[in-house]
Amino acid sequence: MSTTNPSPTPPPRGEGLQTNPTLAPPSFLGKGAGGLGSSVRPNVLAMKGYAPGEQLNDPEIIKLNTNENPYPPSPRVFEAIQATLTSNKLRKYPEPLGDTFRRAAGKVLGVDPDCILIGNGSDDILTILTRTFVPEGGLIASPTPSYILYKSLAEIQGARFQTVPFDENWHLPQPWPIKGANLTFIPNPNSPSGTMVPKVLMELVRAQVAPYPLVIDEAYIDFADDRASWVQTVKHCDNLIVTRTLSKSYSLAGIRFGFAIASPDIIRELTKVKDSYNCDVLSLAAATAAIEDQEYFAGVRAKIIATRERMRPALTELGFDVTPSHANFLWCRRSDRPLKPIYEELKRRKILVRYMNYDGYDGLRISVGSDAEIDKLLAELKSL
Amino acid sequence: MSTTNPSPTPPPRGEGLQTNPTLAPPSFLGKGAGGLGSSVRPNVLAMKGYAPGEQLNDPEIIKLNTNENPYPPSPRVFEAIQATLTSNKLRKYPEPLGDTFRRAAGKVLGVDPDCILIGNGSDDILTILTRTFVPEGGLIASPTPSYILYKSLAEIQGARFQTVPFDENWHLPQPWPIKGANLTFIPNPNSPSGTMVPKVLMELVRAQVAPYPLVIDEAYIDFADDRASWVQTVKHCDNLIVTRTLSKSYSLAGIRFGFAIASPDIIRELTKVKDSYNCDVLSLAAATAAIEDQEYFAGVRAKIIATRERMRPALTELGFDVTPSHANFLWCRRSDRPLKPIYEELKRRKILVRYMNYDGYDGLRISVGSDAEIDKLLAELKSL
Repeated sequence: MSTTNPSPTPPPRGEGLQTNPTLAPPSFLGKGAGGLGSSVRPNVLAMKGYAPGEQLNDPEIIKLNTNENPYPPSPRVFEAIQATLTSNKLRKYPEPLGDTFRRAAGKVLGVDPDCILIGNGSDDILTILTRTFVPEGGLIASPTPSYILYKSLAEIQGARFQTVPFDENWHLPQPWPIKGANLTFIPNPNSPSGTMVPKVLMELVRAQVAPYPLVIDEAYIDFADDRASWVQTVKHCDNLIVTRTLSKSYSLAGIRFGFAIASPDIIRELTKVKDSYNCDVLSLAAATAAIEDQEYFAGVRAKIIATRERMRPALTELGFDVTPSHANFLWCRRSDRPLKPIYEELKRRKILVRYMNYDGYDGLRISVGSDAEIDKLLAELKSL
Repeated sequence: MSTTNPSPTPPPRGEGLQTNPTLAPPSFLGKGAGGLGSSVRPNVLAMKGYAPGEQLNDPEIIKLNTNENPYPPSPRVFEAIQATLTSNKLRKYPEPLGDTFRRAAGKVLGVDPDCILIGNGSDDILTILTRTFVPEGGLIASPTPSYILYKSLAEIQGARFQTVPFDENWHLPQPWPIKGANLTFIPNPNSPSGTMVPKVLMELVRAQVAPYPLVIDEAYIDFADDRASWVQTVKHCDNLIVTRTLSKSYSLAGIRFGFAIASPDIIRELTKVKDSYNCDVLSLAAATAAIEDQEYFAGVRAKIIATRERMRPALTELGFDVTPSHANFLWCRRSDRPLKPIYEELKRRKILVRYMNYDGYDGLRISVGSDAEIDKLLAELKSL
């Protein structure tokens, strides 16, 4: 199987990232859930569960571990929430399909509102996609090292999960080696690398996985080149789905809002699977206001890109091997010193970065913070 | 099969409510979703999708169709949301497990916070339960006529769905006739009837479905007798799960918040299946403030119960057969006139009630509104 091909940069076996059977053997029954062994699905009983990035309560902590935006959301977001804070809005059910948001986003992205599905964060969107396309015993594929939630989604669904290593340029192998996956997830830009797959390679993968869908997870696309998105292509492709989130580029991780862009035929099927009222009135109002304020968005985006571009040479100077990034984080490795103690020492000094270990291939994924936060990070690293 | 047993009150076959195969025959492939027929799961392709109650935009409409609360949420909800409206709260991820809410709810309900799972509305909770316990090809059971979402959940999961008719008192038959259902949902109070199953009968069903879980859906329990809840029983039962929502009794349908109460062993498994950040910062703040203000809650509850108790004789006088209700709605039938035209005429007069038709067994489910709204309803019905 191609997943065991050698790969110069990322090793083929990642921490919980690699091909493995997700339907648990009978030996798991009865374990870990008291007397529930015979009623909980074995795939659920056997799984460990996705562990999100640490959320420490200490307000003095500099959080560079979950790719949150260091800048506030648009002032219009606060105005929109205030305007929605009425008794009638809170006590009544929200718009099931979020038509107001769909019209606003459709205008900004240049797509028909019927091509948009709203979600309670892009996690909700990824869950809906899995439930729509992947049967129990089915197959989900993704590159590795990449976003580890895809494996959890496969485990919950009782599906298999297979990964394909990126090559040394963080590109995808040709031909794409996994045939018949019910769903293929490719984050673009990728996490933890911040890299992008060239358009021509992505298009080949899309054609090769057809008629099954390719999901391009564009959680970080707003920090990349303007023309890098695949949103415009969904019109022409029956098997392409793009996912977005407002958590990163719009500074709204706290309100949980994401969306999918796909053909109206696909959106219709996804709509059957989503909870009827999956987005609440306040998050819908916030998301709509945020995406409508493109001027504010452009300013935040420019600041983050500028900080990122100055972080890379500074971290390189400190001895890190830093992958050029199109996202709001940098993937930092080094061969002369172990990375985990650096993460631990930074944490002790109240700076939280993300230590990621893909079965021995490890690194620090450092979010782009404010300039002051990054100055502090660089100063601390210098003194280590 | 017991689902075809004759039942004096609700007929055995309901509108989309009855036992039927959910794995679509091959003839569905390729239909209804453009070129997607070979990639969308057949169970999803074949299903119609749950249709929530009408949400008309006209602010002049009196909405008595989705059991929303006519009164505003507690003033503390607004204060709590205002206090959460900071840049830092919006731009950062929320508490994954909602510990602040869990502590508050645990105190009010007298259960350990570890027995509580937070959800993006109780729909999210019901979805998580289905994914945790029901494999593809598995079985979900519920009484009928009842909440039709359970069938949609089975369809999305690729599971079978079987129903058991209530008897003429809206009680459950003994012995409970469905063996081996992976999950059994019983709303208590039930919708559309507003009736409750006696404790001794419910306990028999719970014992009979073991080791599989019984889910008692207590969406409307706050309008029933104080001692009617099953929340206290979860400590002693490995196969009992109670679900709650803040949509109805706490006037928060717009913010989407529900929760489950079960043993910590069950909660641990459910937590693996939920999205990491399934509740946003604003809804967590609102839900916590709402449940902490028990004084306000008691006042709203008393007003709704008082209105409900005066609605029943008034509607009976107008010729309806009204089932005594423990919820915030009334199930109204009549044999002398067809009910759908009454629904339609009320809608024309800007009063929206819910017309429900369970394959010929039909009725109007009328939410308890404010006193002014109900006066208007009664006046219009009088003039019909």
